[in-house]
Amino acid sequence: MSKKLTKRSEDYSKWYNELVVKADLAESSAVRGCMVIKPYGFAIWEKMQAQLDKMFKETGHENAYFPLFVPKSLFEAEEKNAEGFAKECAVVTHYRLQNDPDKEGKLRVDPEAKLEEELVVRPTSEAIIWNTYKGWIQSYRDLPLLINQWANVVRWEMRTRLFLRTAEFLWQEGHTAHATREEALKEAELMQSVYADFAENYMAMPVIKGTKSESERFAGADETYTIEALMQDGKALQAGTSHFLGQNFANAFDVKFTTREGKQEYVWATSWGVSTRLIGGLIMTHSDDFGLVLPPKLAPIQVVIVPIYKGEEQLEKITDKIKPMIESLKQEGISIKFDDRDTLRPGAKFAEYELKGVPIRIAIGNRDIENNTLEIARRDTLEKETISGEDVVFKVKTLLEQIQSNLLDKAKSYRDNYLTEVKDFEEFKEVIGNKGGFVLAHWDGTEETENKIKEITKATIRCIPNNGKIEEGICVYSGKPSKRKVLFAKAY
Amino acid sequence: MSKKLTKRSEDYSKWYNELVVKADLAESSAVRGCMVIKPYGFAIWEKMQAQLDKMFKETGHENAYFPLFVPKSLFEAEEKNAEGFAKECAVVTHYRLQNDPDKEGKLRVDPEAKLEEELVVRPTSEAIIWNTYKGWIQSYRDLPLLINQWANVVRWEMRTRLFLRTAEFLWQEGHTAHATREEALKEAELMQSVYADFAENYMAMPVIKGTKSESERFAGADETYTIEALMQDGKALQAGTSHFLGQNFANAFDVKFTTREGKQEYVWATSWGVSTRLIGGLIMTHSDDFGLVLPPKLAPIQVVIVPIYKGEEQLEKITDKIKPMIESLKQEGISIKFDDRDTLRPGAKFAEYELKGVPIRIAIGNRDIENNTLEIARRDTLEKETISGEDVVFKVKTLLEQIQSNLLDKAKSYRDNYLTEVKDFEEFKEVIGNKGGFVLAHWDGTEETENKIKEITKATIRCIPNNGKIEEGICVYSGKPSKRKVLFAKAY
Repeated sequence: MSKKLTKRSEDYSKWYNELVVKADLAESSAVRGCMVIKPYGFAIWEKMQAQLDKMFKETGHENAYFPLFVPKSLFEAEEKNAEGFAKECAVVTHYRLQNDPDKEGKLRVDPEAKLEEELVVRPTSEAIIWNTYKGWIQSYRDLPLLINQWANVVRWEMRTRLFLRTAEFLWQEGHTAHATREEALKEAELMQSVYADFAENYMAMPVIKGTKSESERFAGADETYTIEALMQDGKALQAGTSHFLGQNFANAFDVKFTTREGKQEYVWATSWGVSTRLIGGLIMTHSDDFGLVLPPKLAPIQVVIVPIYKGEEQLEKITDKIKPMIESLKQEGISIKFDDRDTLRPGAKFAEYELKGVPIRIAIGNRDIENNTLEIARRDTLEKETISGEDVVFKVKTLLEQIQSNLLDKAKSYRDNYLTEVKDFEEFKEVIGNKGGFVLAHWDGTEETENKIKEITKATIRCIPNNGKIEEGICVYSGKPSKRKVLFAKAY
Repeated sequence: MSKKLTKRSEDYSKWYNELVVKADLAESSAVRGCMVIKPYGFAIWEKMQAQLDKMFKETGHENAYFPLFVPKSLFEAEEKNAEGFAKECAVVTHYRLQNDPDKEGKLRVDPEAKLEEELVVRPTSEAIIWNTYKGWIQSYRDLPLLINQWANVVRWEMRTRLFLRTAEFLWQEGHTAHATREEALKEAELMQSVYADFAENYMAMPVIKGTKSESERFAGADETYTIEALMQDGKALQAGTSHFLGQNFANAFDVKFTTREGKQEYVWATSWGVSTRLIGGLIMTHSDDFGLVLPPKLAPIQVVIVPIYKGEEQLEKITDKIKPMIESLKQEGISIKFDDRDTLRPGAKFAEYELKGVPIRIAIGNRDIENNTLEIARRDTLEKETISGEDVVFKVKTLLEQIQSNLLDKAKSYRDNYLTEVKDFEEFKEVIGNKGGFVLAHWDGTEETENKIKEITKATIRCIPNNGKIEEGICVYSGKPSKRKVLFAKAY
């Protein structure tokens, strides 16, 4: 496969698919809709996990692990949730294979080993977790229960795309239990802001916080808080959701607690999750026609050093010069790769690290040794400059910060340019159809209008923004009264 | 449930089951054979993971992620491996549920949504991974490939026990590819020593390194390296295995590479894994009739501080006194819990932390404030002493080291006492039947003898020790010639 990418302007979707594969992030597997996350892609996920896990723990959560399987009878207990996921469930029906009597050396499912009750491979874990919480919660003293799980889940999607929508994906799912409605609401909102903080300050991906319309809510939730990001092709990406589940699961699994006053009450719940889908968002927020662009805080390799040399002797000189610099940079917690492979020419290495989005590239040749200089290039702007060897630590540290904030600024200004307030439906259609991006428009609050708009424009309500103004207006589609503008977009 | 544990001498197995539940480590779930790992148990697993992951990366490995499911046709490609796991495979046959027309509000498997090819939930990932490696390996330049995966796997075991044997468990599985037989063998041995290092220096669990007899080998391996530990009831626990897979999977999945000389050759393979079973081993190596005993290096809470007070005013005084100490201890990287709950009396707290195996307990009361003293108690020996407040950091650091090494020494001396060399089969039966533990005995090397011994005594060959003497001898059972003693035991 050629290293050259399709241009974004030619075919954004093709560009994305090629980039994911060529930058060694992930690839399709032999299992329909399931991906293999390759080491470089997984290293990004590890960085994300480490930071999110820290943020969850700082907000009082602990990790635990619940079974992969959900017995069908538990799965169906919360009816809305079950209905929402029933159509995409992988189901285990048997627990044994045997030699196929008709085919030498082949196996078949042993018909004698049929399960009495089928097991659903978890598409989400509310059911199995709330069935467990029933045993853990008796009194107000057992609350709140603040638990997170890192896990794989399976949703049998018909149309899949690497990272964005796969049959199996990795995620974290928080599941908390509270004594009061207010506390649960506060928790759901808190986790929305933790996600927004992570998206903006680590992924350098600006997001709009809001709540979902009823039809876009998580199945089984009373309210879904979301963070919505805008991709370079003008489509929105739902990047993380946090659900206020009311007492729905407590009801379904009969989880009550004794209050301080000795009364029996149902427990209040939240759940919240982000997944490997974030990697898709990261790619589509920053990358360009040369390849991946990674924010320094999530880059597995922050700095790559490429020696430009002819023969062993020159390489040795360069290595001697560069070693103490590498040490000083490592001591600052910077992750560095020194690429002295002799099987690839410097130009090919430059292209490889551009493709892989390494934030800073340092090149050092024979003349640099004489002059005590280095060439330093930043991936985001592709600018190069020659610096003195003494300045390297300071320069690298400064540049990493600059790249991180530049990426956020760039993404913010793009997002702001593609957030259009419209007055009527003609303008709505025009913007969604041509310019793309987010559209802020008055909506009458009915599912009917929401569906009509979707039918005509393919745009959905991404969220009702948290900080939206309350104002009198009329719905762009129906002309009926509306109290505030909501955010529409075509979405992934 | 009473907090009091069954004594080990009364019923070791009951003691274990009670301890796991009462110390809040894990519990059975609604899914047959699957466990819920509770936050305290999971925190131990996180500590294990962090250390192992560090050791894997230091030895050049990277993490990646492969699909949960293995299509049946891939699963059966390596016949020995498939045969070994076929009897315990959970199989996904359908991808959708639908409303049950006969039962209002219930779901059933949609008969229209039958998969063309069944999917096995991975019991281990050689098949799916080697099918993927086929695309990654063309030339010697692509080798070695050193990859690890942290994942859940499912083996449909009929008799399950929390941590030790569950239908779903968490583990890591390394899968490496090499250009030569020698390099692959070296890798398999290296990972055996990494596991042994982790077991001894972090878990404080001494292990014997060796290789498995042919009948005890991993299905599909040419050699299995193992580490074997001895539990307090005289039974052995296989704590980690590392397999030299020869070219078996390369053959099955047709994975060849071009050598430096331009020839086509099959790739050599290893795989290696440890699982949440290690937590079972940790428990059964150190714990006592009062509860869990944790080595400091893996304890989620290393020091608990319990204030002894009457009324708010006394608590405030103690808190003021203790706060700077907590800060100094935290700065040393020590994990601390200050338990000032007013819902539990100090005695109950003491019992709780004994049950949970917290290595050091500090108690501080009103009189201690006056005298500038603290009471410090160690969990391993249950010894208490009163120390001066100034000495706390030094004392805690020293004690943590002492506890860690004392636990290893104790476990080693137990293991050495229960490692018996026997000369004939009478003695063999006597030791296995009464004393228990490891038995070193000559064996003629045949599977027939191995099976007979197992039939009569329930002891299996745990390993052929790495450092075993080569000497002329006669098999304890058959009287045939033998070249070295091997290690027998009853095992988990």
